[in-house]
Amino acid sequence: MWSKPLLAVAALALGPVNALWPVPQKISTGEKVLFIDQTLDVTYNGDSISYTYGYSPSSGSDFSSKEIVQAGVSRAFQAIFQDNFVPWKLRERNSDFEPDVYETKTFVKSIQITQTEKDDASAFKPLAGEVDESYTLTLSEDGQAVIKAKSSVGCLHALESFLQLFFKHSSGTFWYTPHAPVSIEDEPKFPHRGVLLDVARSWFEVDDIKHTIDAMAWNKMNRLHLHVTDSQSWPLEIPALPKLAEEGAYRKGLSYSPEDIKGIYEYGVHRGVEVIMEIDMPGHIGVVELAYKDLIVAYNEKPYQWWCAEPPCGAFRMNSTAVYDFLDTLFEDLFPRIAPYTAYFHTGGDELNKNDSMLDPDIQSNDTEVLTPLLQTFIDYAHGKVRDAGLTPFVWEEMITDWNITLGDDVVVQSWLGGTAVKDLAEAGHKVINSDYNFWYLDCGRGQWLNFENGEAFQTFYPFNDWCGPSKSWRLVYSHDPAAGLSKEDAKLVLGGEVAVWSETIDAVNLDSLVWPRASAAGEVLWSGRQDSAGQNRSQYDAAPRLAEMRERMVARGVRASPVQMPFCTQGDPSECGYTP
Amino acid sequence: MWSKPLLAVAALALGPVNALWPVPQKISTGEKVLFIDQTLDVTYNGDSISYTYGYSPSSGSDFSSKEIVQAGVSRAFQAIFQDNFVPWKLRERNSDFEPDVYETKTFVKSIQITQTEKDDASAFKPLAGEVDESYTLTLSEDGQAVIKAKSSVGCLHALESFLQLFFKHSSGTFWYTPHAPVSIEDEPKFPHRGVLLDVARSWFEVDDIKHTIDAMAWNKMNRLHLHVTDSQSWPLEIPALPKLAEEGAYRKGLSYSPEDIKGIYEYGVHRGVEVIMEIDMPGHIGVVELAYKDLIVAYNEKPYQWWCAEPPCGAFRMNSTAVYDFLDTLFEDLFPRIAPYTAYFHTGGDELNKNDSMLDPDIQSNDTEVLTPLLQTFIDYAHGKVRDAGLTPFVWEEMITDWNITLGDDVVVQSWLGGTAVKDLAEAGHKVINSDYNFWYLDCGRGQWLNFENGEAFQTFYPFNDWCGPSKSWRLVYSHDPAAGLSKEDAKLVLGGEVAVWSETIDAVNLDSLVWPRASAAGEVLWSGRQDSAGQNRSQYDAAPRLAEMRERMVARGVRASPVQMPFCTQGDPSECGYTP
Repeated sequence: MWSKPLLAVAALALGPVNALWPVPQKISTGEKVLFIDQTLDVTYNGDSISYTYGYSPSSGSDFSSKEIVQAGVSRAFQAIFQDNFVPWKLRERNSDFEPDVYETKTFVKSIQITQTEKDDASAFKPLAGEVDESYTLTLSEDGQAVIKAKSSVGCLHALESFLQLFFKHSSGTFWYTPHAPVSIEDEPKFPHRGVLLDVARSWFEVDDIKHTIDAMAWNKMNRLHLHVTDSQSWPLEIPALPKLAEEGAYRKGLSYSPEDIKGIYEYGVHRGVEVIMEIDMPGHIGVVELAYKDLIVAYNEKPYQWWCAEPPCGAFRMNSTAVYDFLDTLFEDLFPRIAPYTAYFHTGGDELNKNDSMLDPDIQSNDTEVLTPLLQTFIDYAHGKVRDAGLTPFVWEEMITDWNITLGDDVVVQSWLGGTAVKDLAEAGHKVINSDYNFWYLDCGRGQWLNFENGEAFQTFYPFNDWCGPSKSWRLVYSHDPAAGLSKEDAKLVLGGEVAVWSETIDAVNLDSLVWPRASAAGEVLWSGRQDSAGQNRSQYDAAPRLAEMRERMVARGVRASPVQMPFCTQGDPSECGYTP
Repeated sequence: MWSKPLLAVAALALGPVNALWPVPQKISTGEKVLFIDQTLDVTYNGDSISYTYGYSPSSGSDFSSKEIVQAGVSRAFQAIFQDNFVPWKLRERNSDFEPDVYETKTFVKSIQITQTEKDDASAFKPLAGEVDESYTLTLSEDGQAVIKAKSSVGCLHALESFLQLFFKHSSGTFWYTPHAPVSIEDEPKFPHRGVLLDVARSWFEVDDIKHTIDAMAWNKMNRLHLHVTDSQSWPLEIPALPKLAEEGAYRKGLSYSPEDIKGIYEYGVHRGVEVIMEIDMPGHIGVVELAYKDLIVAYNEKPYQWWCAEPPCGAFRMNSTAVYDFLDTLFEDLFPRIAPYTAYFHTGGDELNKNDSMLDPDIQSNDTEVLTPLLQTFIDYAHGKVRDAGLTPFVWEEMITDWNITLGDDVVVQSWLGGTAVKDLAEAGHKVINSDYNFWYLDCGRGQWLNFENGEAFQTFYPFNDWCGPSKSWRLVYSHDPAAGLSKEDAKLVLGGEVAVWSETIDAVNLDSLVWPRASAAGEVLWSGRQDSAGQNRSQYDAAPRLAEMRERMVARGVRASPVQMPFCTQGDPSECGYTP
């Protein structure tokens, strides 16, 4: 089906000219130049569609596939014509790399988009694998672009690939691709390709979150895990429990209203990014103490390390009817608002410290024998509520590995502790998300965020490295295969992975440059696979120039991604800045 | 002279309310609120001066002290009234921390600035210690501000301290300080407080450089070391050697014209920041090969590690009359343009690899016995030209430590290799700048920038840590005393220090968040001293809340500094996120 052209491309892919990110499963490109302007015809299932910068599909859970694709076309045009860049950093210094605009030009004439199957309701809130994200894209030498996909999200992915073919000409009034003809056949390796954003430890505006969704969609990432509350703050407005955000937000008004939440979820759906909200429990929830008393133990107990991993501690009382009542109210308020837009809800479950329950007047014990049945009941109850709302529960791995809690077969388990955890979980039959902190925790390696007073604390912790250093360079991120070492059968249970952005020292100001393009590196592993079609690990020599190009494109589109290499490297062959022993 | 009020303040300084950065040598503050508006009177040596946002002193080397101070006042007003912030992150959650704007308000009525001595020419291009940067600032309860300084730069420092007293009120139309009365007596510990910015490996616009000068001035840092060329690119236009930038810049037009350079130097002088340009030689200059042949050996030789520390290598031929002719032309073009604005020129000298001269047809040797006399002659010649232009030479330490070159007593030696180097150099009588990479290299710890092909290179270098990790957190930066372990007499030879921003993976996009506020931490060590007036190392408990406040102020003023701690920490006492064993 896909034979000779592909082989010819394998060599080309080593050069700087063939620069899609993430790399498609199959791609062939040529060397003919096609210009593009805004007069070309775009059709969707035969209907002509218009494109307007900033066009958004209508709001509401009655999604229109056509509107979603139309918005994708508008974004592609925005990226090609408004937010594009001249690729001087990616071409030989002082070389004449641009096409001559005074010669006869061939233009892209049309983009014919065909969605071959109807989106059903699950297409907009899929379980992992439930929506077919594959697409094909061809661009002929005479300027006919053809996109085919089974779903609207497949069409969106095709459009993101299409726009990555084009550059701005330094004249400022022309845009072109040097890569025609193009033929792409593409689909994701893993169905769950996520970013975890902790919006509880630091405050992020709704626009910061949407901005992150944008960048994810450009990288064909499709799950935004919103860690929305933690012991430090509760920025989530729950109208039935108004004091939560009033007292628990870092500042009155710095909280997400129901409209905000709806807006974030919709924004994601329109871009193929499903939002998965986490309200971490029964630990990591001390902040509730500020609003509703008698639900929490160990809030801000010191020294914190006896009670939790970081201040201010605090966990639910696990044998309290008041806590169950609270959960009822919380979930009954929240779930109906998010269920139209997502298949999942994450109940957390990491780092629960047994000691906390010693302070619980109903328990007064840190004995696993005492606590485990209480926790089992708690989780069963919470997950029952999740399922009642039509959602599927997510948990952190400690629920199994530390507590041996029995979970439903539907539950997705997120692993962060590395080692053999993912393998063990998959072999035990669990669906697993790989967030191994050794590779995919993007906040790590920049040093401690705690204060150390002169004297013993200073001496002990000098030079103040954090627990999870060194920082995860894109090369390290890229080296991580989420299903490494698993049998083919067990590997199927690894739904994908998430890079994590814990926000002890990250806010909107440094978010972009810490997340991107390192999350892109994970994005390619998750979409394209750590191995190429020949089963070889993808090489930095292949990835570096493409990632450098993707970075320039992201910057041009408004995301402050960090540079991959200095221009001296990106202007040359990848071996120019390659190490040869 | 300065007794009781000071002691009273020592306690206060532990709280979050007293937040100047860098901390003045002596400060007392109160708890009375003063409002401020734009109608107050400002005088300079008795003359009323006006303030206009964006006001700049006239261009040219005939500096007007009054214009410089007037521009400083305008910037202070810009910072207070335009680019200010509501300090919610620095105050207890949901607390009523703002003054009541409906009550009777006392306003700041006047700022009386007195410069007690005239600036002489050296004030605008001082050798280390040549200009007196001290100042006093008082702000009385009834709103009279008095600034006294011997130099215009002292006045600028006072104005930066003054503006840091003020916050925006959330009403949006009021501005206030909660700290009156204020009394400050201040002067720097070290005369050389620098940032090294590598504008050769990555390209930075003139505005990026000026932006960095702004942030330096806010932190009372006063030396911008501009590493303007390296083997990767030559962005410096030399009209007498036009091909240098034409061929050596990363892209035609991405180079600094004589006007640009004049503008950068002037911009610095107007803000008390002296620019020190480095043209690194005789190594780190391979790029000249692209423009002028026969001056360079080992350009882009591979494997690079035989010839230099990183690609593309390249060093001057050290026994070549053509190289001496080139230096004559280069220096005679450049020096007259910069000498009006600076006391210094840096001739580099780091990482010269002996092997390079094996490829030099005139030398064909890597024997130190052969090379050292050639290098001595080269340095003598170059430094002679520097002195002829009225400038003082700077070098990297290897000229002494690796090569045992004899240098003039005037030469300042920059040490980066850590260990006992600074001590050894000072004990040998050299003036030293401390840039110990273990503490003050801000680019470190984010991983390798080289590509490693699958196989041996990948295996050897996995997990791709860079040579100088881990990354230098602000706590580590802050722990570094540039004159640690030196006798009082030797310590006088340590003129100060520089944090370094090497740009293999830094460009304008991530510059701010990598440099700030970590450079601020070094800035305080260099201005205030690692030890307080009682001789105790300054504590993270004292520094963290002040640095967090400075960070917010920098962000408000347009510099994308990274967060110091999450709001949970900054809203509380410093011990809230402090480690207690």
